[in-house]
Amino acid sequence: MLNVEERLASLGITLPEAPLPVAAYVPAVCSDELLFVSGQLCFSGGVLQHRGRVGQDVSLEQGYEAARTAVINSLAIVKQELGSLERVARVVRVTGYVACAPDFYDQPKVINGASELLQEVFGEKGRHARSAVGVCALPLNSPVEIELTVAYK
Amino acid sequence: MLNVEERLASLGITLPEAPLPVAAYVPAVCSDELLFVSGQLCFSGGVLQHRGRVGQDVSLEQGYEAARTAVINSLAIVKQELGSLERVARVVRVTGYVACAPDFYDQPKVINGASELLQEVFGEKGRHARSAVGVCALPLNSPVEIELTVAYK
Amino acid sequence: MLNVEERLASLGITLPEAPLPVAAYVPAVCSDELLFVSGQLCFSGGVLQHRGRVGQDVSLEQGYEAARTAVINSLAIVKQELGSLERVARVVRVTGYVACAPDFYDQPKVINGASELLQEVFGEKGRHARSAVGVCALPLNSPVEIELTVAYK
Repeated sequence: MLNVEERLASLGITLPEAPLPVAAYVPAVCSDELLFVSGQLCFSGGVLQHRGRVGQDVSLEQGYEAARTAVINSLAIVKQELGSLERVARVVRVTGYVACAPDFYDQPKVINGASELLQEVFGEKGRHARSAVGVCALPLNSPVEIELTVAYK
Repeated sequence: MLNVEERLASLGITLPEAPLPVAAYVPAVCSDELLFVSGQLCFSGGVLQHRGRVGQDVSLEQGYEAARTAVINSLAIVKQELGSLERVARVVRVTGYVACAPDFYDQPKVINGASELLQEVFGEKGRHARSAVGVCALPLNSPVEIELTVAYK
Repeated sequence: MLNVEERLASLGITLPEAPLPVAAYVPAVCSDELLFVSGQLCFSGGVLQHRGRVGQDVSLEQGYEAARTAVINSLAIVKQELGSLERVARVVRVTGYVACAPDFYDQPKVINGASELLQEVFGEKGRHARSAVGVCALPLNSPVEIELTVAYK
């Protein structure tokens, strides 16, 4: 049975440096049992992996990839805050915002890029409550923003 | 004094089967004291009750009805997770997303469809913190999505 | 070392009466350790300080000011619920919704109006996790809505 770090490695994923906030806040805050992670964009190597609206400038596949990248950034923050991803007891909630064309209704398929990675990495503990919402614009023209909340031990 | 199930019955509401997630997540997750429910759409009998944007394709009254239907789906999930709605200690937070025309500013009146039902069903325990937000598009072209968080005992 | 009330005074801020909900919900709900505050608009003296979309009808500076006003309203509610702002153990999460033009991508700079005030008032305890999202319309045509969650003792 692989642990979380081994599963990441088996997926070929190396967690990046935890992204710094782009403004006056912090990457994450712990309450007694929950870790609240700031909304993450699809930064990869310091630049946004994609820009624009899904269903217009960005394809569904690229949106899926952006959601996956955003949640990898979220996990980098979780690791930084908790010391180890093994301390995640449960992924509790994901809110996935998708910047999209007004006639795009496949937000769930985009946010699956985040959700499927969480399940691959954490197994049962990665199964989470989720909302997917289409919005008109996101910071820096990112197509996706992922807001993660996890329970930890 | 009616209990929660009796109040639902007195309103003529039969909870449906808890809707299955439309993608890679679960209907709800419990942490130590909070139940986080996935965003619910206005499914009724397996189809969306309304489609489109409030203030454009969908009237305010239909939006209100969609919000009521979405929160009935949320309650079906709460019952499935907790076994009984009597275990709800408090409805804590509702975030209500309304797909709407750009010049529609009555999101609170739409989300009242959810809020008023929660108060009818749970009384004082149903009074919750709330945000109502207008967005450009929601999954499957639902006019409303309701994200519910409850405290339980 | 100034306490929270003194810091507010030194900033020239007098907390208003806690705004009443504009619909069927309550200003805030406490769970065991978290206080969930309803989404607040930029009401000042009973009227919205600004109306419209940032990057279109409302400037970035006005949006910043609206976010600051909205979080002052949130703090008025926190004080009403907890009795004193000194009971805030940590500002946990801010979700900032910005009604904006479709080509406006500076939501973080707008929501800094809320975040910077929280840090000025609460110091380290004011540093929070945050998401900033651009949406097509907000209640009553407010340019900003702030959803606050705090941990309390």
